[in-house]
Amino acid sequence: MENGGNSVNYESKETSTMTIKGILSLLMQSTVENKNKRVISLGLGDPTLFSCFQTTSVSEEAVADTLLSHNFHGYAPTAGLLQTRQAIAEYLSRDLPYKLSSHDVFITCGCTQAIDVSVAILARGGANILLPRPGFPIYELCAAFRQVEVRHYDLLLEKGWEVDLDSVKALADHNTVALVIINPGNPCGNVYSYNHLEKIAETAKQIGTIVIADEVYGHLAFGSNPFVPMGVFGVIVPVITLGSLSKRWIVPGWRLGWFVTTDPSGTFKNPKVVERIRKYFDLLGGPATFIQAAVPRILNQTEESFFKKTIDDLRLNSDICFKEIEEIPCMFCPHKPEGSMTMIVKLNLLLLEDINDDIDFCFKLAKEESVIILPGTTVGLKDWLRITFAADPSALVEGLKRVKVFCQRHAKKWLKQC
Amino acid sequence: MENGGNSVNYESKETSTMTIKGILSLLMQSTVENKNKRVISLGLGDPTLFSCFQTTSVSEEAVADTLLSHNFHGYAPTAGLLQTRQAIAEYLSRDLPYKLSSHDVFITCGCTQAIDVSVAILARGGANILLPRPGFPIYELCAAFRQVEVRHYDLLLEKGWEVDLDSVKALADHNTVALVIINPGNPCGNVYSYNHLEKIAETAKQIGTIVIADEVYGHLAFGSNPFVPMGVFGVIVPVITLGSLSKRWIVPGWRLGWFVTTDPSGTFKNPKVVERIRKYFDLLGGPATFIQAAVPRILNQTEESFFKKTIDDLRLNSDICFKEIEEIPCMFCPHKPEGSMTMIVKLNLLLLEDINDDIDFCFKLAKEESVIILPGTTVGLKDWLRITFAADPSALVEGLKRVKVFCQRHAKKWLKQC
Repeated sequence: MENGGNSVNYESKETSTMTIKGILSLLMQSTVENKNKRVISLGLGDPTLFSCFQTTSVSEEAVADTLLSHNFHGYAPTAGLLQTRQAIAEYLSRDLPYKLSSHDVFITCGCTQAIDVSVAILARGGANILLPRPGFPIYELCAAFRQVEVRHYDLLLEKGWEVDLDSVKALADHNTVALVIINPGNPCGNVYSYNHLEKIAETAKQIGTIVIADEVYGHLAFGSNPFVPMGVFGVIVPVITLGSLSKRWIVPGWRLGWFVTTDPSGTFKNPKVVERIRKYFDLLGGPATFIQAAVPRILNQTEESFFKKTIDDLRLNSDICFKEIEEIPCMFCPHKPEGSMTMIVKLNLLLLEDINDDIDFCFKLAKEESVIILPGTTVGLKDWLRITFAADPSALVEGLKRVKVFCQRHAKKWLKQC
Repeated sequence: MENGGNSVNYESKETSTMTIKGILSLLMQSTVENKNKRVISLGLGDPTLFSCFQTTSVSEEAVADTLLSHNFHGYAPTAGLLQTRQAIAEYLSRDLPYKLSSHDVFITCGCTQAIDVSVAILARGGANILLPRPGFPIYELCAAFRQVEVRHYDLLLEKGWEVDLDSVKALADHNTVALVIINPGNPCGNVYSYNHLEKIAETAKQIGTIVIADEVYGHLAFGSNPFVPMGVFGVIVPVITLGSLSKRWIVPGWRLGWFVTTDPSGTFKNPKVVERIRKYFDLLGGPATFIQAAVPRILNQTEESFFKKTIDDLRLNSDICFKEIEEIPCMFCPHKPEGSMTMIVKLNLLLLEDINDDIDFCFKLAKEESVIILPGTTVGLKDWLRITFAADPSALVEGLKRVKVFCQRHAKKWLKQC
């Protein structure tokens, strides 16, 4: 079974008790013992750690101006400033066959809070939610805190990490409150085609649920499939779209996200639903008013060249990453990434001598080589690894060279003799 | 029963379905019909609406510098930046008989999110929480979303809005997860004495629960009682202290708050509790990293003269407010405010002709006089009014003159003839 083959070993409930930031923090502590090597972090989806990924001056100037205008030190409405909601509605409508209004948009503290809102407002006794595996563990954590049962459907490796629609149909029942998709994909770096998204919408309609479309990596597509927002299929099934400035504008620390009802049929306009959403926002903090106030200018004045550079850098980096991994016998990336900032790699433990699993691999790698990679168990795939390629190319190359050296050192003896 | 006497008519469950911002927004819509008069809002606790309450340049410069340094565009740890947690620990420790550490401090999106965290982490099947009446309705809303039962204890008008400790003892049982106090008081503008706070701590200990001390108006005391943080009594009973930059630094829109375990006995250091708090923070957005990064400088470099000016302004304004209200026959403020930014006033409906209740009063006032005042029902006291005195003195005087004219216009006929 060269390179571990295509077998997928799905983890179940344990994912809900582990968070990406939690395990990365522990991995970082393991690097402390090795002071000779600078730490290379390919673990967190935060490109600002690297000099080649920096936001545009338009964004910084817009926020500095609203801060220093003295006009935005007070409270914003809990759903967000009207001009901000309006600007986001217009921004998202550019790619939709219908127009969103400011009433469809609610401003959140990053996409993380948008995830929590979407789970919390749907929570009710006996509710269950369909989550992708592999996926993003904040969903599991939110569901646990909001007493919503998690049911995992699989992403199909053999179909470029598409949604297993049969599995979705088999899992759903009358208590299924939503089907969550992440596109462009985290952790798999895949980008769904128009046709596949349409099938997802039809499946959700068939099982009588809505779609939560996590598009935090929206527009970050550099392969053959262009990014298509799920809201395009809002005419088929009600869609909640989650997004943020974080990734496309490279400002994850600004905590400016959105929760949007992309739903031309008006399901979410039911007064009781509107009231529940509105009240839930009343107890959230929301992002800083002056950052909200800068959003219209940021959305309207960012140059296309800035976006293009990011896409070009991500394509180049993912190529570097893919090629370096091809050089490492115990690793195998079955699907070259086409979007987002992460890829997922199978670990062939049969070729390694003293590594128990993906978590053991990552802790030993951190300790010996000061390279941080996320164990796949954290995202629902045991004995896989999630690698973030939003890094400086030189850091990527050096980091993966160290991974190669590490794997050689831990290779089974008969392999070393080959 | 002149001026409505001291009778208190407590509202119960309905408060949980109404929010301050929700009703203020409706009141604001009522003013639209009256274009001749500028709107005077004495409803929201947001002093930035008035030119005399502006933050210090130290704060603005600190945030502008961290923004433009390019060093804080990335994610902060979910519990907050270490230097920010450290600075808040030091700031709060100045007034405590023991030292807090950075591990005690978690950064939130304003005090609102700190409230939600405190309720959510204590939620469990059958849990109940003791809330003050009158109080701040975000607590009721959080409890409703987190399935925590609310039990209201009364604040005693005849004792300057002190906690009714007998009522607290009568309400508590083994499922009581916390006793919430708000000091300085919102809506009553009272400030608890050292002795009363000590008694609260002893009562909480006796009933076997913890204290959540909402100190969002911390240090804003201008009467005879100095502000004493509840954490002083952390040796008697575990205390969770909630606070923010919002009020003392006059930047509510920056959404920079804190949730702090002021608990020298280490109850919250139980690994399971620490883990639960940490995980809950993993699903929150948190405030912008660059704003967090500015906090150490803001806390350490703000001039005493800035704080003194705010206190002097609030004292002057509350005096103005108190005196103007004395001139209005149908209104009575039984307890002159000594802190915070709000006071509470009894409405004597017997003297008014066509006003049904406090809500009717506020809507008619908004429509006829373009003055916004919060109906007491929103904060748990039917037929009372909450007035925010953090306003420009001229706006306060004009606003209350209009209230007087309004009350004269709606006075019972026999009164007009007097």
